[in-house]
Amino acid sequence: MAETNLQILLKRRPVGAPLEADFDIVETPVPEPGDGQVLVRARYLSLDPYMRGRMADAKSYAKPVALGAVMEGQTAGEVVASRHPGFKPGDIVLGGYGWQRFSVVGPERLFKVPEADPPLSSSLGVLGMPGLTAWTGLEDIGQPKAGETVVVSAASGAVGQVVGQIAKIRGCKVVGVAGGAKKCDFVVKELGFDACLDHHGDLEAQLDAAAPEGIDVYWENVGGKTQAAVFPRFRDFGRMVMCGMIAQYNEAPGADASGAPPGPNLGPVVRKRLRIQGFIVSDSGWSRYATFRSEMEGWIRAGRLRWREDVVEDLRNAPRAFIGLLKGENFGKLVVRID
Amino acid sequence: MAETNLQILLKRRPVGAPLEADFDIVETPVPEPGDGQVLVRARYLSLDPYMRGRMADAKSYAKPVALGAVMEGQTAGEVVASRHPGFKPGDIVLGGYGWQRFSVVGPERLFKVPEADPPLSSSLGVLGMPGLTAWTGLEDIGQPKAGETVVVSAASGAVGQVVGQIAKIRGCKVVGVAGGAKKCDFVVKELGFDACLDHHGDLEAQLDAAAPEGIDVYWENVGGKTQAAVFPRFRDFGRMVMCGMIAQYNEAPGADASGAPPGPNLGPVVRKRLRIQGFIVSDSGWSRYATFRSEMEGWIRAGRLRWREDVVEDLRNAPRAFIGLLKGENFGKLVVRID
Repeated sequence: MAETNLQILLKRRPVGAPLEADFDIVETPVPEPGDGQVLVRARYLSLDPYMRGRMADAKSYAKPVALGAVMEGQTAGEVVASRHPGFKPGDIVLGGYGWQRFSVVGPERLFKVPEADPPLSSSLGVLGMPGLTAWTGLEDIGQPKAGETVVVSAASGAVGQVVGQIAKIRGCKVVGVAGGAKKCDFVVKELGFDACLDHHGDLEAQLDAAAPEGIDVYWENVGGKTQAAVFPRFRDFGRMVMCGMIAQYNEAPGADASGAPPGPNLGPVVRKRLRIQGFIVSDSGWSRYATFRSEMEGWIRAGRLRWREDVVEDLRNAPRAFIGLLKGENFGKLVVRID
Repeated sequence: MAETNLQILLKRRPVGAPLEADFDIVETPVPEPGDGQVLVRARYLSLDPYMRGRMADAKSYAKPVALGAVMEGQTAGEVVASRHPGFKPGDIVLGGYGWQRFSVVGPERLFKVPEADPPLSSSLGVLGMPGLTAWTGLEDIGQPKAGETVVVSAASGAVGQVVGQIAKIRGCKVVGVAGGAKKCDFVVKELGFDACLDHHGDLEAQLDAAAPEGIDVYWENVGGKTQAAVFPRFRDFGRMVMCGMIAQYNEAPGADASGAPPGPNLGPVVRKRLRIQGFIVSDSGWSRYATFRSEMEGWIRAGRLRWREDVVEDLRNAPRAFIGLLKGENFGKLVVRID
């Protein structure tokens, strides 16, 4: 039996939380690389919250996935055929090849990465887009200084776990926020955060106990009630790194949505001289990938940076895993092992 | 009859909008300067929105005025007696000497300024704290670039008129927001803004007409419905300079007030990579006063910078004028001529 391509398509745009029926799983012929292209067989697919935005047709920083098109996403895989002199079969590459087993890509979308040490899947997590997000957001916006207090939401997630550990390396006190005792235990015992608060409890009281001095840097992954609890607790000159607001990805229809829930009154921004700043890693992050990777690999070798992955087997399970990601059901960086 | 000091004291903390009965007007003996001090006779008092914050005992960036103490404020006046070698009678000085005719001050609080050319009252406005606020906020946060669209709230006020004119000098398209046709006419015809929108009308429709391309820099003086109309209209990488939110000064009890009205949903901060940043001119602005004044005087001499003052006669009228300021009744920088 000849190999086929397995692809996951966007069937219809979700209303609220995505359903498995919003996706199509299809088998198609393996594509042929054209001149200057390579054929990549993906080994791992990264699942990330931003993908919810691509499923909607609201105006945003990136175009939506078209109905009937392959879902967007980063994969790490192996070159299996090449018509480009820079790549040969067996090369391990990283790129945005979508939710599919095989893809044909040009060299502008190929990053060569090591196959092992650290293992390949890390190039989709701690050493991939989520890690780069953490590193650039702290470098450019959070700018944590030794002795400051940093609060990280979604602390056990792909980005949060890296944010907190870099802040620890920078000499900060780091308080995570996560869902449930198991995640919080991991964040404190394995990742070395100073504390981790369960957002199912009374976050305001927990914050007052864990950070009575107030908050210098808040890493925003979630929005909602965590944002509401953190916002009044900033110290003067606090910084709020706006990475995402997963709590409302299934609610707010889009960029200028009038249906979105209100946010905090901005009075404290003046009085406390706060800075609230958003960023998208793809704007400029990849141009600094080599510097990022070298610094991160140094910390990994020194045993200062750990991570946890939540590996789902079989590409066919990607829709269900992605739906769970938006509910916080994953524990660590969510990746799909494709075969 | 010997001269007396005239002082305006904070009698009680206002609930909501201040009333004249919240102030005491008293006559007291003229104070004597101690060793190293000077006696200043104020000619002009500046009235500014931040003073509302000083009347409340909520936690903020500056201590509240104590009950029974002289109201805080900047004055420009003349040294009438000196026991400091650096100052002599007749010197014209600027400083935070409060709502009173005479004050005794040490050299650390004395800035010498010219008596005329431009006239002394300008040292409380375009060349004083409000002008410095505009200049530093644009330099440090707004960073308007030629061709960008800048929206300025309270455009005919002390800070707004300077913000918009500097943005014009920097090559921007400048849209003001002000209350009423008279102020808007002044903003366009006298100050040279490209447009001015009346916030009594439908601001959203007016913004769409005046700036269909969207907003790169928003100078926030007011909050409330103007903020709500501007916020969804930022372009990517927009900056929101948080200078003040006068619309809620009589409402929100303080820094961490749970009673404050909600603000905008912060989702667009991520998607559009916005930066929202607050500042207080007294943090670092005065150390740059000489540079500021020299650049501003250059623009004034070149005829590129105009201003309008709203001069109230007699210190006894300061409470009434201040109450009107919070309602937008002034037209231009509000100052009180003391005698």
